[in-house]
Amino acid sequence: MKISKTLLQHGRKVIDKYNLYVPTEGVFPKGYKVGSIASGVKKNGNLDLGVLVNTNTSRPSSAAAVFTTNKFKAAPVLTSKKVLESTQGNGINAIVVNSGCANAVTGELGMQDAQEMIDLVNRKIGKPNSTLVMSTGVIGQRLQMDKISAGIKNIFDNNALGNDFKSWLNIAKSINTTDTFPKLVSRQFELLNGQKYTLVGMAKGAGMICPNMATLLGYFVTDLPIASSALQKILRFATDRSFNCISVDGDMSTNDTICMIANGAVETDEITESSEEYEQVKSQVTEFAKTLAQLVVRDGEGSTKFVTVNVQNSLTFEDAKIIAESISNSMLVKTALYGQDANWGRILCAIGYAKLDNLKSLNTDSISVSFIATDNSEPRELKLVENGVPQLDVDEERAAQILALDDLEVLVDLKTGNESAQFWTCDLSHEYVTINGDYRS
Amino acid sequence: MKISKTLLQHGRKVIDKYNLYVPTEGVFPKGYKVGSIASGVKKNGNLDLGVLVNTNTSRPSSAAAVFTTNKFKAAPVLTSKKVLESTQGNGINAIVVNSGCANAVTGELGMQDAQEMIDLVNRKIGKPNSTLVMSTGVIGQRLQMDKISAGIKNIFDNNALGNDFKSWLNIAKSINTTDTFPKLVSRQFELLNGQKYTLVGMAKGAGMICPNMATLLGYFVTDLPIASSALQKILRFATDRSFNCISVDGDMSTNDTICMIANGAVETDEITESSEEYEQVKSQVTEFAKTLAQLVVRDGEGSTKFVTVNVQNSLTFEDAKIIAESISNSMLVKTALYGQDANWGRILCAIGYAKLDNLKSLNTDSISVSFIATDNSEPRELKLVENGVPQLDVDEERAAQILALDDLEVLVDLKTGNESAQFWTCDLSHEYVTINGDYRS
Repeated sequence: MKISKTLLQHGRKVIDKYNLYVPTEGVFPKGYKVGSIASGVKKNGNLDLGVLVNTNTSRPSSAAAVFTTNKFKAAPVLTSKKVLESTQGNGINAIVVNSGCANAVTGELGMQDAQEMIDLVNRKIGKPNSTLVMSTGVIGQRLQMDKISAGIKNIFDNNALGNDFKSWLNIAKSINTTDTFPKLVSRQFELLNGQKYTLVGMAKGAGMICPNMATLLGYFVTDLPIASSALQKILRFATDRSFNCISVDGDMSTNDTICMIANGAVETDEITESSEEYEQVKSQVTEFAKTLAQLVVRDGEGSTKFVTVNVQNSLTFEDAKIIAESISNSMLVKTALYGQDANWGRILCAIGYAKLDNLKSLNTDSISVSFIATDNSEPRELKLVENGVPQLDVDEERAAQILALDDLEVLVDLKTGNESAQFWTCDLSHEYVTINGDYRS
Repeated sequence: MKISKTLLQHGRKVIDKYNLYVPTEGVFPKGYKVGSIASGVKKNGNLDLGVLVNTNTSRPSSAAAVFTTNKFKAAPVLTSKKVLESTQGNGINAIVVNSGCANAVTGELGMQDAQEMIDLVNRKIGKPNSTLVMSTGVIGQRLQMDKISAGIKNIFDNNALGNDFKSWLNIAKSINTTDTFPKLVSRQFELLNGQKYTLVGMAKGAGMICPNMATLLGYFVTDLPIASSALQKILRFATDRSFNCISVDGDMSTNDTICMIANGAVETDEITESSEEYEQVKSQVTEFAKTLAQLVVRDGEGSTKFVTVNVQNSLTFEDAKIIAESISNSMLVKTALYGQDANWGRILCAIGYAKLDNLKSLNTDSISVSFIATDNSEPRELKLVENGVPQLDVDEERAAQILALDDLEVLVDLKTGNESAQFWTCDLSHEYVTINGDYRS
């Protein structure tokens, strides 16, 4: 069954996401070069292989990563994990990423292929055990190593590595599969001591069109020197509040990987957990990761709305997050948002069945739920439930205005503590079903 | 946005569920009478209030119930729970159920209304603390007690109680909200000792059309004498393998209730946990509950397929169930089933992120996944993954045949133990999004 896109989009405006979310310039960290190529693994001739190289030699780099907890871990996940464990995250100088084939559920041969990708890059940069690998694409098929191998050779031999805007945009494109736009963010930060540093990051979306295309990949690199143990803590903290707080369809893939390199090209003292600047760096990296993660939600398959679920004043952070996740993953909440239905009952319901660590995080007599407008219109907050009591005279006109926005917020105030968590989700649309259901028909 | 039903149904046959699943006759247990009425709570004039009464006086009846674990428990749930606790399940002689209003998130006044429903019936049957109450419908609105009260009076005073087929079918209809057909099952069983007994049960669906209509209600009654402590164990066991093993959208409501009465109208020894027949009764009640629960899935909103997810040879029952549930609730699996896509990758993925109690229940090198045809066509089993290795030469033609069936089975063989669990799910269709998203538009 096919339903024409025109029909499905009838009644709402089409959002030009590429123009809205893809930058046209950027500021990039010192001491990195990137290159990408169409190796031929993707049959449509799009970019599908990228290499990032650390060119800074002033001191050894640090690296960290957070991997999928799916029990079917793909070969590149297992292989990169091994590299990080054996090096303790010290002296990682390259990342190689391919798209089009996930090298997942490929057994021992897949492990050899992932290792060969690493070895090829290690040889090119002349350093052993210095490269991480990521893959995304179809599950259950082996990598075409002839194409990958030729592609890596081409990137290095034909001077395809650069640090200009176009090189960064292209490597961001090279990890895309079903994404409708590349996700590239770069920003300069300043620490309280006046020291400036730069972060650049890219990600690919979690939605699937083609079968088995589910993967969330992200990596960011900085020129700030950060000790590897501090970097691992910072990345874990940031990921728990960004990439682990987004919901497109609630499914977690075999290949999900977020990694980070800090090459220390900026001349300043290395950040450790005891540095005065540690907390500030952690917070800046977290905000940066949130920006990148939100782009993945904005590109959620068939989505028409970007929704922030903000759970405040919980007894624990974990329970705030569990509640935010339960709301964000609820099919009934997601379809209500698509239908622009001010359905507080479904939100309460999703809160009520969340599997909390501590039952005291939720008090059914103190909870309040509101919609928040994000366009500065007033009143900004529309209360749906206050202290456990539904507001029976909700201003339906105002509700309709807020729900018609492309961006909106669901605010849950638990009033059981001081911890907060945010989740970012999208609505569930007819297009989602069309994209994910009709691939073969 | 509206998409016409005709368009959405293009390309597949429309299933006449009413004709397929609603009985035209039945065999009913001794010693019960039921009556139902259109009280006016439902604005469309449909049946919305029902009363079941135990008329057997040969011995005291037993009752048991399993309630929602949602933290926002509706007033009828809290009130019925109190009745069962104070009576220990002994001497329960009536069930009163209304639809159209869930009496949920209604505070102290809602508790009074639920208690009043119970009191009205208690007075009519002349026994104190003898009635359970269930409600389903809109959340956050108070019951119209004038209509409910007049309705209960009418059922008793106008001789509207009966034990014929039509009375049972009507009371099954009276608990429906968005259901497209009433779910009524009755069956006579025989124990190894030759003793016959009868079970009748009814249920309403878990899907939602109107906002906040989410509720799963079910109750069954038998004329076999069963001690209340044994009955509670039997009902818990049966519910864990039936109503707790179905997935329409994965959301659990504030009102979900399954209850059971055994009045002992059959002249035989009471079944206790030490009876020789205990295990047989438990198994028969469980099979009966499965039949009823499966009807709820068959009526899943917008669903076009009924899918049995069968997880075998797990180290523990709990983990078999967690894996079956993870597959059944995956939006990506459900849309693939709708799209008739033999997507084993999404199934493995959902298995891989299931939150197991014991990691040893899943061995990624021993798992096998197959589709099973349910129409006796051969080969019955189509292997997709065997011992962790994807079958790259899957017979696509056979896959298409199996996936075109209205009923099919996903078989997961873990090979880590001897425990099994089944879940029943449906596909995720365009209609689901239309029904749940477009209510107000």
